[in-house]
Amino acid sequence: MAEYVVPAPKRRRGRPRTGESDARDRIMAAAVEEFAEAGYDGATIRGIAARAGVDSALVHHHFGTKADLFGETIQAPMRPDLALPEILAGPRDRIGERIVRYILETWEQPEVRRRGVVLLRSAIGNKLTTPLLAGFLSRELLSRIARSLDTADADLRAALAASQIAGLLIARYVLRLPALAEASVDDLVDRIGPTIQRYLLG
Amino acid sequence: MAEYVVPAPKRRRGRPRTGESDARDRIMAAAVEEFAEAGYDGATIRGIAARAGVDSALVHHHFGTKADLFGETIQAPMRPDLALPEILAGPRDRIGERIVRYILETWEQPEVRRRGVVLLRSAIGNKLTTPLLAGFLSRELLSRIARSLDTADADLRAALAASQIAGLLIARYVLRLPALAEASVDDLVDRIGPTIQRYLLG
Repeated sequence: MAEYVVPAPKRRRGRPRTGESDARDRIMAAAVEEFAEAGYDGATIRGIAARAGVDSALVHHHFGTKADLFGETIQAPMRPDLALPEILAGPRDRIGERIVRYILETWEQPEVRRRGVVLLRSAIGNKLTTPLLAGFLSRELLSRIARSLDTADADLRAALAASQIAGLLIARYVLRLPALAEASVDDLVDRIGPTIQRYLLG
Repeated sequence: MAEYVVPAPKRRRGRPRTGESDARDRIMAAAVEEFAEAGYDGATIRGIAARAGVDSALVHHHFGTKADLFGETIQAPMRPDLALPEILAGPRDRIGERIVRYILETWEQPEVRRRGVVLLRSAIGNKLTTPLLAGFLSRELLSRIARSLDTADADLRAALAASQIAGLLIARYVLRLPALAEASVDDLVDRIGPTIQRYLLG
């Protein structure tokens, strides 16, 4: 399993080991532990700071929000939560198309794809990692999409959209089903965009 | 990783070890090796028989087709390839609904779900298992659906449907996104059936 577990933070090359980088490394190590034990929702910046023996303010200073710190610990290849406000702000009748295009254009970048595949394999193949990534997705992505929809069944709508996006990424980039792996981004946006649109707002 | 690899065949309890059960075990062990090394498409009954030191006819006698034997080696919790003719034979305008209902009603059975989740985790988490399951799906399921559709882009249509089904199973049963895990089968058939229908025939 070693290949797919959450990676330990790497020391940056060429950077002299100072008190500051030492604290940074201790915070990262503490975050990996805290997320693994408490899950995404249960983990707190305060708890991570306590494990690292530093002040909460120093964690915020080095890493920003809990979502930012989580993104660092899993070496997140993309940060859909940061792109979300812009995607949600555009015309409502083309939101499905925008979501599919954003995801695919990001994953077409070789480095994003490489790390994204490792992350997907880890999140699904490893029982310990699964609830961690599901928690992050639910909290930082799906619940925000749901709030923007403002309908009674918004949580289910957001989860249905997530199921198609997850399935698309797995079928195209992990299973590499030939017809899907060979399709153009534009073709997939045309075919899958309306599905996401209908799930969210249909 | 040991938890998610293709399991070795278990000896059946209470069954006396005879020459016949010995040959059966050797065939199963040979099949696991052959599928792992040659992939689903590359594996042959003849090659498996040779590895096991038996005649091809004996392999067919004990296990049927290559798809049947593969189903045994992965302890397949369901055999969608066997249900497919019936699903494809019904009214064309409700094929999406029938596919989603068949999948969900099967996975709602606790034993199918338990083994299905292990299989999904293995197929996605393990680099060696991924192409094996993708090969089986492509050959025994998607290419048959595509042939029945009889359109120029049938392979892509079948793969898109597979992406939504895979994403549904992962989001509901592996990630357990709350809104999706709690939804009723009927509700999901109503919401996802039209997606599969449009991908295949829209």
